Amino acid sequence: MKTKIAVANGDGIGPEIMASVLNIFEADHVPLEYEFVEMGKSYFDAGHSTGMTEKAKETIENLGLLFKGPMETPKGKGVKSINVTARKVWNTYANQRDFRTLNGVETVFSKAGTQINLTIVRENIEDTYGGIEHMLTNDVAVGRRIITRPGSAQVIRYAFEMARRKGYKKVACGHKANIMKLTDGIFLETFYEVAKDYPEIEAYDIIVDDLCMKLVSHPEMFEVVVLTNLQGDIVSDLCAGLVGGLGFAPSANIGDNISIFEAVHGTAPDIAGKGIANPTALLLSGISMLRYLGLTAHAANIENALLYTLEQGIHTGDFGDRSTTSVNTEGFANAIIANL
Amino acid sequence: MKTKIAVANGDGIGPEIMASVLNIFEADHVPLEYEFVEMGKSYFDAGHSTGMTEKAKETIENLGLLFKGPMETPKGKGVKSINVTARKVWNTYANQRDFRTLNGVETVFSKAGTQINLTIVRENIEDTYGGIEHMLTNDVAVGRRIITRPGSAQVIRYAFEMARRKGYKKVACGHKANIMKLTDGIFLETFYEVAKDYPEIEAYDIIVDDLCMKLVSHPEMFEVVVLTNLQGDIVSDLCAGLVGGLGFAPSANIGDNISIFEAVHGTAPDIAGKGIANPTALLLSGISMLRYLGLTAHAANIENALLYTLEQGIHTGDFGDRSTTSVNTEGFANAIIANL
Ligand SMILES: CC(C)[C@H](C(=O)O)[C@@H](O)C(=O)O
Ligand SMILES: CC(C)[C@H](C(=O)O)[C@@H](O)C(=O)O
Repeated sequence: MKTKIAVANGDGIGPEIMASVLNIFEADHVPLEYEFVEMGKSYFDAGHSTGMTEKAKETIENLGLLFKGPMETPKGKGVKSINVTARKVWNTYANQRDFRTLNGVETVFSKAGTQINLTIVRENIEDTYGGIEHMLTNDVAVGRRIITRPGSAQVIRYAFEMARRKGYKKVACGHKANIMKLTDGIFLETFYEVAKDYPEIEAYDIIVDDLCMKLVSHPEMFEVVVLTNLQGDIVSDLCAGLVGGLGFAPSANIGDNISIFEAVHGTAPDIAGKGIANPTALLLSGISMLRYLGLTAHAANIENALLYTLEQGIHTGDFGDRSTTSVNTEGFANAIIANL
Repeated sequence: MKTKIAVANGDGIGPEIMASVLNIFEADHVPLEYEFVEMGKSYFDAGHSTGMTEKAKETIENLGLLFKGPMETPKGKGVKSINVTARKVWNTYANQRDFRTLNGVETVFSKAGTQINLTIVRENIEDTYGGIEHMLTNDVAVGRRIITRPGSAQVIRYAFEMARRKGYKKVACGHKANIMKLTDGIFLETFYEVAKDYPEIEAYDIIVDDLCMKLVSHPEMFEVVVLTNLQGDIVSDLCAGLVGGLGFAPSANIGDNISIFEAVHGTAPDIAGKGIANPTALLLSGISMLRYLGLTAHAANIENALLYTLEQGIHTGDFGDRSTTSVNTEGFANAIIANL
């Protein structure tokens, strides 16, 4: 039996990195069927305000799972990012990003011998992402930051469930409740409330500025950190930087009915179509998706092949040093396939 | 002629690190007189809601300059941090923190040979620090984020003036105007408006999550970054982590009438009174203060002595490895004095 999922290629380098990831899946005989949907900047330009056609929306809602390439944010006042819209439309309330040291991807931390293996779970809908703002006068802008108890509970519960499933021993709550005493206050309260259901996991909290200071000096201290939306956005990118950048960070948007696995890096229009883009982040997202679908043997197999390929010093031109082998997108995918 | 300034010892390790910094000043014949003021947690506990006596407030307002040790944040609902209150009461609208690689203070970045020399200028009053929040229902908390054009202009102008004075070539604006289109929007607009008056300085902007990713991989790219309050708070601590922690980061709160130079690290109650605390952050803040007062020769002399002492591998017990010399607070101060 094959599971069918929706696939959106994305903009810029999207189609070529998606093709290479699906090739790798095929080589491993992953039992998936794909329905390609119309979603991205060109559909926004053609008049679809959400960046997708009605048909695409229906397909995604029927299938419940979307695998997507990077998408360009349309320009203009009042216009929202297609990624952010998608998260909201389908209430994908938890954004999960796994960061780990990849041998062969050199960073200051890998050089120092620090092993990073941490997951950021970010609330994905609330906070200032509601976009409720107004000009009180021409000189005074007021924005509203909204945090709810149910909205906090669902993402925090997701973080603990995930931690339990993966055998993590501690979950931290990052927050700024010393300043935002009510909004971050209820997030923090809810955190300790939910934590009671997971007595085997150590639950603790840390002020977000202190968290960032520790992340850049002792990232190995952390396993799972759950945060509100904007703080989670900032901390996620910080962590991406620790392991080599957005090109090496998977992203999953989890909801009760629909989930989205995506590459969160840019669309790199300057190199689009040249066949040299790095598919690693999308592949890592795809591997998370396979695990989510219960295809754990395929996930492990492809992951090992990817890790081994990177370790061999084979990589696309955007990283790595000259003593190692720089290949194009296809060459990279082929090397992974050879290592399956 | 001696300039008189107000000095607040602070709580916990405050008195001992302040004493050691003032000893170093004295050894260099710094022409300052000190008026010690009553400010800190114990004054809050004694019923002064701002954490200082009326007399302290008057003295500080008369002298226009406060040099302060770390202060404990009182606990309790609705209670504000003494530091945050002081910034607000005196409208010290710009918080400046200078981060640089200190030879002898080992970090993953120093080991990788990365030289850091950057300054974060943070808006110090507005944003969610206004503390305007309410519970809409028991489950929904709403906070208000307020950004004003004049409030933005004064801190941004400060950043450019400082950059000009110190010969920096670029100033970046960190922001999240792609999501907070009006609030961060006017901060960003104001940034480019003010930048016009400094044509010799390159002005550019960067989304705060991307900024954090770049700061942890290529901190040497940045010279001056100006941000709104909360984002600036987070980014400041991140940068402190890059150079060894809050124990190595000076902080200045600049206003038109009153400025505060302070240690922003904690009060370390566990080691208070033991004479082993690290006075480096307070000393660096003091050196910034000397420069601010025009005492540049003293600033340079003391700074060189501090840098040389650290380079020699002499340090307090909170950092450094065993092959170097660990001393107590007094020993560290004496080593600096010997190097003057
Ligand atoms: C593009 C931007 C609106 C988005 C966000 O802020 O969530 C991005 O930074 C992300 O993390 O996916
Ligand atoms: C103690 C806290 C309220 C304060 C802040 O958030 O400004 C601190 O983090 C700082 O940076 O001085």
